[in-house]
Amino acid sequence: MTLPSGELTPDNCVFLMIDHQVGLMQFLNSTDPMQMKNNILGHAKTAKAFGIPVIMGTSWPDGPNGPTMPELKALFPDVDVIDRPFVNFWNDAASKAAVEATGRKKLVISGLATEVCAAFPALAALREGYEVHVVMDASTDFNPFITQVTMQRLASAGAIVTTWVAVLAELSANTQENGQFIGQYLSEHMGQYYAAMNNYLGVAANAETVRTNVGLNGQPPIPLAGL
Amino acid sequence: MTLPSGELTPDNCVFLMIDHQVGLMQFLNSTDPMQMKNNILGHAKTAKAFGIPVIMGTSWPDGPNGPTMPELKALFPDVDVIDRPFVNFWNDAASKAAVEATGRKKLVISGLATEVCAAFPALAALREGYEVHVVMDASTDFNPFITQVTMQRLASAGAIVTTWVAVLAELSANTQENGQFIGQYLSEHMGQYYAAMNNYLGVAANAETVRTNVGLNGQPPIPLAGL
Amino acid sequence: MTLPSGELTPDNCVFLMIDHQVGLMQFLNSTDPMQMKNNILGHAKTAKAFGIPVIMGTSWPDGPNGPTMPELKALFPDVDVIDRPFVNFWNDAASKAAVEATGRKKLVISGLATEVCAAFPALAALREGYEVHVVMDASTDFNPFITQVTMQRLASAGAIVTTWVAVLAELSANTQENGQFIGQYLSEHMGQYYAAMNNYLGVAANAETVRTNVGLNGQPPIPLAGL
Amino acid sequence: MTLPSGELTPDNCVFLMIDHQVGLMQFLNSTDPMQMKNNILGHAKTAKAFGIPVIMGTSWPDGPNGPTMPELKALFPDVDVIDRPFVNFWNDAASKAAVEATGRKKLVISGLATEVCAAFPALAALREGYEVHVVMDASTDFNPFITQVTMQRLASAGAIVTTWVAVLAELSANTQENGQFIGQYLSEHMGQYYAAMNNYLGVAANAETVRTNVGLNGQPPIPLAGL
Amino acid sequence: MTLPSGELTPDNCVFLMIDHQVGLMQFLNSTDPMQMKNNILGHAKTAKAFGIPVIMGTSWPDGPNGPTMPELKALFPDVDVIDRPFVNFWNDAASKAAVEATGRKKLVISGLATEVCAAFPALAALREGYEVHVVMDASTDFNPFITQVTMQRLASAGAIVTTWVAVLAELSANTQENGQFIGQYLSEHMGQYYAAMNNYLGVAANAETVRTNVGLNGQPPIPLAGL
Amino acid sequence: MTLPSGELTPDNCVFLMIDHQVGLMQFLNSTDPMQMKNNILGHAKTAKAFGIPVIMGTSWPDGPNGPTMPELKALFPDVDVIDRPFVNFWNDAASKAAVEATGRKKLVISGLATEVCAAFPALAALREGYEVHVVMDASTDFNPFITQVTMQRLASAGAIVTTWVAVLAELSANTQENGQFIGQYLSEHMGQYYAAMNNYLGVAANAETVRTNVGLNGQPPIPLAGL
Amino acid sequence: MTLPSGELTPDNCVFLMIDHQVGLMQFLNSTDPMQMKNNILGHAKTAKAFGIPVIMGTSWPDGPNGPTMPELKALFPDVDVIDRPFVNFWNDAASKAAVEATGRKKLVISGLATEVCAAFPALAALREGYEVHVVMDASTDFNPFITQVTMQRLASAGAIVTTWVAVLAELSANTQENGQFIGQYLSEHMGQYYAAMNNYLGVAANAETVRTNVGLNGQPPIPLAGL
Amino acid sequence: MTLPSGELTPDNCVFLMIDHQVGLMQFLNSTDPMQMKNNILGHAKTAKAFGIPVIMGTSWPDGPNGPTMPELKALFPDVDVIDRPFVNFWNDAASKAAVEATGRKKLVISGLATEVCAAFPALAALREGYEVHVVMDASTDFNPFITQVTMQRLASAGAIVTTWVAVLAELSANTQENGQFIGQYLSEHMGQYYAAMNNYLGVAANAETVRTNVGLNGQPPIPLAGL
Repeated sequence: MTLPSGELTPDNCVFLMIDHQVGLMQFLNSTDPMQMKNNILGHAKTAKAFGIPVIMGTSWPDGPNGPTMPELKALFPDVDVIDRPFVNFWNDAASKAAVEATGRKKLVISGLATEVCAAFPALAALREGYEVHVVMDASTDFNPFITQVTMQRLASAGAIVTTWVAVLAELSANTQENGQFIGQYLSEHMGQYYAAMNNYLGVAANAETVRTNVGLNGQPPIPLAGL
Repeated sequence: MTLPSGELTPDNCVFLMIDHQVGLMQFLNSTDPMQMKNNILGHAKTAKAFGIPVIMGTSWPDGPNGPTMPELKALFPDVDVIDRPFVNFWNDAASKAAVEATGRKKLVISGLATEVCAAFPALAALREGYEVHVVMDASTDFNPFITQVTMQRLASAGAIVTTWVAVLAELSANTQENGQFIGQYLSEHMGQYYAAMNNYLGVAANAETVRTNVGLNGQPPIPLAGL
Repeated sequence: MTLPSGELTPDNCVFLMIDHQVGLMQFLNSTDPMQMKNNILGHAKTAKAFGIPVIMGTSWPDGPNGPTMPELKALFPDVDVIDRPFVNFWNDAASKAAVEATGRKKLVISGLATEVCAAFPALAALREGYEVHVVMDASTDFNPFITQVTMQRLASAGAIVTTWVAVLAELSANTQENGQFIGQYLSEHMGQYYAAMNNYLGVAANAETVRTNVGLNGQPPIPLAGL
Repeated sequence: MTLPSGELTPDNCVFLMIDHQVGLMQFLNSTDPMQMKNNILGHAKTAKAFGIPVIMGTSWPDGPNGPTMPELKALFPDVDVIDRPFVNFWNDAASKAAVEATGRKKLVISGLATEVCAAFPALAALREGYEVHVVMDASTDFNPFITQVTMQRLASAGAIVTTWVAVLAELSANTQENGQFIGQYLSEHMGQYYAAMNNYLGVAANAETVRTNVGLNGQPPIPLAGL
Repeated sequence: MTLPSGELTPDNCVFLMIDHQVGLMQFLNSTDPMQMKNNILGHAKTAKAFGIPVIMGTSWPDGPNGPTMPELKALFPDVDVIDRPFVNFWNDAASKAAVEATGRKKLVISGLATEVCAAFPALAALREGYEVHVVMDASTDFNPFITQVTMQRLASAGAIVTTWVAVLAELSANTQENGQFIGQYLSEHMGQYYAAMNNYLGVAANAETVRTNVGLNGQPPIPLAGL
Repeated sequence: MTLPSGELTPDNCVFLMIDHQVGLMQFLNSTDPMQMKNNILGHAKTAKAFGIPVIMGTSWPDGPNGPTMPELKALFPDVDVIDRPFVNFWNDAASKAAVEATGRKKLVISGLATEVCAAFPALAALREGYEVHVVMDASTDFNPFITQVTMQRLASAGAIVTTWVAVLAELSANTQENGQFIGQYLSEHMGQYYAAMNNYLGVAANAETVRTNVGLNGQPPIPLAGL
Repeated sequence: MTLPSGELTPDNCVFLMIDHQVGLMQFLNSTDPMQMKNNILGHAKTAKAFGIPVIMGTSWPDGPNGPTMPELKALFPDVDVIDRPFVNFWNDAASKAAVEATGRKKLVISGLATEVCAAFPALAALREGYEVHVVMDASTDFNPFITQVTMQRLASAGAIVTTWVAVLAELSANTQENGQFIGQYLSEHMGQYYAAMNNYLGVAANAETVRTNVGLNGQPPIPLAGL
Repeated sequence: MTLPSGELTPDNCVFLMIDHQVGLMQFLNSTDPMQMKNNILGHAKTAKAFGIPVIMGTSWPDGPNGPTMPELKALFPDVDVIDRPFVNFWNDAASKAAVEATGRKKLVISGLATEVCAAFPALAALREGYEVHVVMDASTDFNPFITQVTMQRLASAGAIVTTWVAVLAELSANTQENGQFIGQYLSEHMGQYYAAMNNYLGVAANAETVRTNVGLNGQPPIPLAGL
């Protein structure tokens, strides 16, 4: 069983964001690129909000894999994106050194494709005793079956599979202090929350009307209008 | 093209609700029975709200098709459910006479299964010049492909395919007069609206808190809590 | 492997029903809200039928998450719903104290969203040695992939994933004593069983006709009518 | 619009069952072969029950398309299966002559693949003024999208798209005379009806027990047992 | 058949954007709200780019339907959003007058829900001889089956069903003049194009490297790196 | 990890076929009843072919669950079907005694519903040290998500999840001795194999024609006919 | 209704293959690019086999749409691919002139994306009285819903929707003359047929063994081996 | 947990490719045969590229399972395909001896069907202490549910589930040395990469145009053309 001793905190983890390149985004199409873009940005902003170190890599950016998502680079202007001549991020001395330099033992890994760019360093780090979280929805593959196989492989090997919203929520912990990050990033990058939050703000803006309109007894006192 | 001269009104149509029997509901499983039950009841309440005549039929209620949905019978205690020895409702003298007795020329038909119990009378009535609406989601079939075939067959023959919510909305027309029916029946029988309406009433109940809480400028002044 | 020493009984477990709020129900739309509402109520009635303690929580009920489902509150008028300033139910002193006050070591957890509100306390309780059941279909998420990831995460950590019907059946144990609960709650909250039970009761009501009609030799002696 | 003057009757139609060959069944896999086999047999038995003439064809039975389904041939031992050197059944003199020899103007066509073997004669016959029904679920294709395209093509050209159950029900007409065919063939070839009919017969076999057991008042007087 | 005499041009059409309200967006969940938001904005920017008049409406914005999408209002600060007491936009004198004031006979309609807010004015306008385009993917419904039924209903009545990208492309016509709109709006609101365009720009930025790297003979002269 | 010391053999296992009742088959509709019927019969014939003991149970056969599948009873006329007053087969003394009487420690369990009737005895037997195989496709549930949850629960507890074809193949072992069982039961109960085997036999019947027809050089020497 | 007077023949039609560019193939991902590539090549080879004129176009090949599929260009080395500055192929004088130069009135159109590149010239040509076939599976879109909308739009406007296999079969007509094209192109570009044809050839190669092996009486005389 | 001590290398593993026969490919249709063919060939070329020993088997090649894929045999002309009289490859002395002769302890297994031909030797080899990788997408089954069950069974037993692309990438390791294999085999056998690579090469061919055209500042200086 895979049950770590405690939760992710801003002080105990590092994010490995590997090969979030726009070429890969367009042909690893088991996730719609619009959703992928939003998941990646939501995950990246989480790192930024909590001051968590981010290590970024690329694979053949001059080739069909293309350059790193421009919005992602813009979020971390001071982070050097490490291009590497190895398939496995962990086998690249510079990449691994960047991880070790943080001194942190909880790795939060995402990558395109999940089956290679996220899974390979995850497995290698597990061998060296790291606690590894793989952010499954900030990663994607050629098709959904590959992702399903990879998730099973990772879980069997002892990795913790997770999601970008769960990582954000786990790091937020105290909502009186950090709830604003949840509210803001979900509104920006999760469509349902965008709609819900704007609807909430809209209702709030005309609170008096609402109160009068519905009577607050559970049955509207005046005819309801429209669908 | 199938474009009638005007809209459904409470005065110009009659509902034919054919073979909404619980045995059929369980084995015509291309629609989940919970959703089917709610669609049928939402449609039936629409008739009741606007005083529209309803004609009900059964086919082999002593057999595996089973009795009419009890809630449906309870809604219309004065309606005689006509059991018939013909597959096609329209070929049954008593059933057809009941339709003709209303003197109305716009038929709103639903039935289990769509491919037989709704489609056959729809096609027969079209031959006699009636305007026929088939409520596709208050009807269902052995599998979704059958429904797809049947919808094409009906549309090609000149039937208007529609839904129970569209029928309700078309009859409501003026929301200041009838909006309550939309609000109430959607809350009772459409899960999303149930959640939305209860959420709305909940927000209204604490309107002052909401107003203060979010500041109404689109950015919450205090930290937002929780997912 | 995760194999507890015995079954759930009315005396050895406590239900944690976390954040079953109507706002969350409408935007966590990987489960249809109508089905979600019914799953939650079926699960809640199970607790009530067997006198199992229920602890309820909310997260930002004044915000877009909205108030607790009114039918749920109505079922447990004496239960205080604990609103908390922490994402993780388990990190809230009052919530955790409520659990500890029951003295029970088997937790049956459901929550919206699964990935956060159900999963976080489940993982924390596992760390403290509790046996944790997560009711996957009384919980839901922004999309089905998140649920799939979360189920793997929970199972890998040692949680028992289960369903509301399995919990009901496990607690019923002896059907001569408790079979009525299965019959009643499935009829009320599982559409297929609603149809099946009503069909059964309908056939029973005309048992003589049925007997005569089909001859009991496996081949109907008189022509069968209808679809 | 495509609205014929009347219904199919045993006296006014002929079935064209084209290329129901086992080789085609295995590689035209947008329908599961088990379901396809049952749909074809249910449709064929309909013809036999009502004495409707059946014309059968094959295409390259010595090749990968394989021989006609053996059960189908066994049903019609006196029907010569016409192998033809034309893609389009209608362009084959012997095949067309067989149709014309019946003197019937309503054609009920099914074939593998729908896009070619059913669609081509359907379109050709429409050009010559026949009324054409295409039994969409006794036909299938390389993939579901092809079937969707073909259904639109056929409907736009004036063909009536239908299903094997609808054809059976349309021909049965009077259930007191022909209901046995519906009951029997659905029990044999539609899985849901198999289960429902056997359940019905089982309940009938112990009608007294049922009556006593449930009390007939809608609420069981004794505890219900089991799921 | 529905074949208008010519194409949409900036001078001959008007957009009716009906009830694009954030409350509706969250519970009409057959389209993911993130995609819906992008489709609506892409469609709205099309109007703005070509100077096409836009008429906007709301239905019960103080209720659970919520306010109009804020980004949509921001795009058209000078457009009055007409709240109406009728379900059908066309039955509202002010709304209809706004359409007539444009003097245009080609209506491009989108709305939430498709089955009601888009379909009802579409059908009414068809009765009065307008050419009606319904933008199916800038509209959505409670579930996909409703959308399928509604599309058939609309097409049978003579409406042209279309998409926001097709409308944009049809209005762009000459890519030397207007291709920038296609490039920009697809990059902003269609995830695949976002990835493709950014990848293209990235390759262009290192064109020399690319040229050298691959040799331009179809086979890379140096080992290719990475997935 | 769950890796038993050896394979299933006719001498070391017993089949528990629990609650394969026709009422359950119709409303546990996450598997099509036609497929379910065939999977169950294929599994039952496997037991019969190898002389493996079979223990059968029912739950409320007088109620909506209905009687045991008649074909199943017919296969095992000498097996007493044990009706029990407990949800869990393992808690019923007679049922458990029947298992113990075989003296076998490898249980091959299937049941309707998987989440209750198959899972509960599986978990109980695991606690007592049995090796438990659950035949997932001779079992089914109210919906596919429940099955997915149940499979995870079972696998986490140490059960071996399997399929009816795998069980048949595992028991067949030596195809020179037992290959006929694979050939026959797959032909009878797996649609694809039905088509493939009949196609194979058809080709064999005209082997000379085939040989001449294609020339055996990989390219047909004469024009190929038909699709 | 859309029922042309006769079939496609090699002498009466022209293929318009519009914008089959590799950039578009990768981001119009509602069809898997491997399937799309094969559908396009199967369709192109059909033209070549029957000597049908082909007119090819591109849209922004220097941009993200990319160059024409190299295999497609290689098939038609003498065809000039016309790059055009108009969205609509029909509005480009050179493109339209190329069509008119053939003097043919039956157009067989495919294009990426269907909603724009195939649909726009289809609609324009219909206005000028051409018979228009749109090859729906040699075309694709950003998502499947767009394709569904576009198919309805095209069919309503009088276009014939079809598939590449149907076009191939329609042109082959006489299988003694042209069956080889069906056999070859399906083997090369339709995966199921590839498997079926190779299996058939394999069986033919060992015809004697097969004959002996199965005995030709429908039941194998010797034990069958393996799955 | 299943975490081996290191990665696959060309020196430490052997590929078992079991029963990749064309008959099986056509009726094990949970994977499209075109994709299956490509996955198998991509996997086979990986072995060839790195000089990894391959052991191939068949089951009843004279029967409906058919001969080995011809392209697969052509790739390995020197490999004897071992036909065996046992269901389980591992129980066949010749097959097992071939594995042992390599002296390698990491097995990379694929087979048709996964549930039998891949799973059985995988489980047997695990019992003997081998490290077993199962290439899930170079294997397939009668339906996707069977594959899901089998993947869970294998993972629970300690097998590593993987994909053909992951195996290729893991063996490539250093992209400066082996990246060409990734580039070539993905281009040949993964549709998306085919499109992406050809697009990339096309853009490179006109690098100057691209550079000038877009200006490299992220906003195109001249109007963009086309979709």
